[in-house]
Amino acid sequence: MNTGVLDELVSALRCLPSVGPKSAQRMAFHLLQRDRAGADRLARALGDALTRLHNCARCNTFTELEVCERCSSPRRDASQLCVVETPADMLMMEQTHSYSGLYFCLMGRIAPLEGVGPKELRLDRLLERAADPAVREVILATNFTNEGEATAHYLGEMLRARGLAVTRIARGLPVGGELEHTDIGTIAQALSERRPA
Amino acid sequence: MNTGVLDELVSALRCLPSVGPKSAQRMAFHLLQRDRAGADRLARALGDALTRLHNCARCNTFTELEVCERCSSPRRDASQLCVVETPADMLMMEQTHSYSGLYFCLMGRIAPLEGVGPKELRLDRLLERAADPAVREVILATNFTNEGEATAHYLGEMLRARGLAVTRIARGLPVGGELEHTDIGTIAQALSERRPA
Repeated sequence: MNTGVLDELVSALRCLPSVGPKSAQRMAFHLLQRDRAGADRLARALGDALTRLHNCARCNTFTELEVCERCSSPRRDASQLCVVETPADMLMMEQTHSYSGLYFCLMGRIAPLEGVGPKELRLDRLLERAADPAVREVILATNFTNEGEATAHYLGEMLRARGLAVTRIARGLPVGGELEHTDIGTIAQALSERRPA
Repeated sequence: MNTGVLDELVSALRCLPSVGPKSAQRMAFHLLQRDRAGADRLARALGDALTRLHNCARCNTFTELEVCERCSSPRRDASQLCVVETPADMLMMEQTHSYSGLYFCLMGRIAPLEGVGPKELRLDRLLERAADPAVREVILATNFTNEGEATAHYLGEMLRARGLAVTRIARGLPVGGELEHTDIGTIAQALSERRPA
């Protein structure tokens, strides 16, 4: 007995990640009854984002420009290229204020179970970007999940084969970490990757 | 370093209930990178819903008509009026196939802590609806949460004062329920509300 327009809204809300039928229904009712201004704002924001945002020709993140501000900034060190999975990871790296190189955003990771292989990730674009003679080092900053590790391994092989220096961000105990409360896998890694004190 | 259009999308997504900053960012990236068609569909669905849906003049649920199909159906029993909190609750009642009366949807419940009182719920509209001489019984089917119970109590007093017969849906053990695995509050209620076997 729902109307077609309402059914369509509930169904369209399910294109959002991890929104199931119950949540979608709750969202639709909330917007219609309590926040019509918010719904209107969201519709406009979606439209604007779709027409104005695309992937940066250099780093692949979202931008309104052909090449994003960061990639065209003369203050960034063009000799370092840091590979991350998502724009959110890029923002986290920036918030450390300890990296001034450039980035390449994969917009995903190799995940065979989800049908995402090197081809789907368009890794040819990373190869092209890394072929820039200014690049001296490629820093792999994919996650330390199974998929992130597999992606780093694959990228490492691929980039080294082209004569590039490739590094991986370090794995070990977190800042403030105590051995007693750290998982044994992390401790084992920290031990095998120990460095001169 | 996010662009304005992207920031606005992330921020607009937060008008959805229980979507925080991290989820909003994840949703925005997902739509832009993986499901532009879905984002477009959502933008249109929101626009359509906002222009075409409003509250039914009789039962207050969402409809494209002045009076919804259910309220104008000659096959529904106009002597019973069931009060529910949300359109979702109405759908659940319908799915039981054991009610053929009409509804009134509160679109919320009395929740003083959230600033929702009888006035904000527009209970005058329910009073007006229940004043229809065809109505013989008002069935309160608000939730058995604290707010739902308080709402039922308030509505009961209000409607009885106007000479209407008011009932409350039963509380007790669920179908298939075992005493050993039921909370004591529910068992106590089931005991005090026992009926001839």
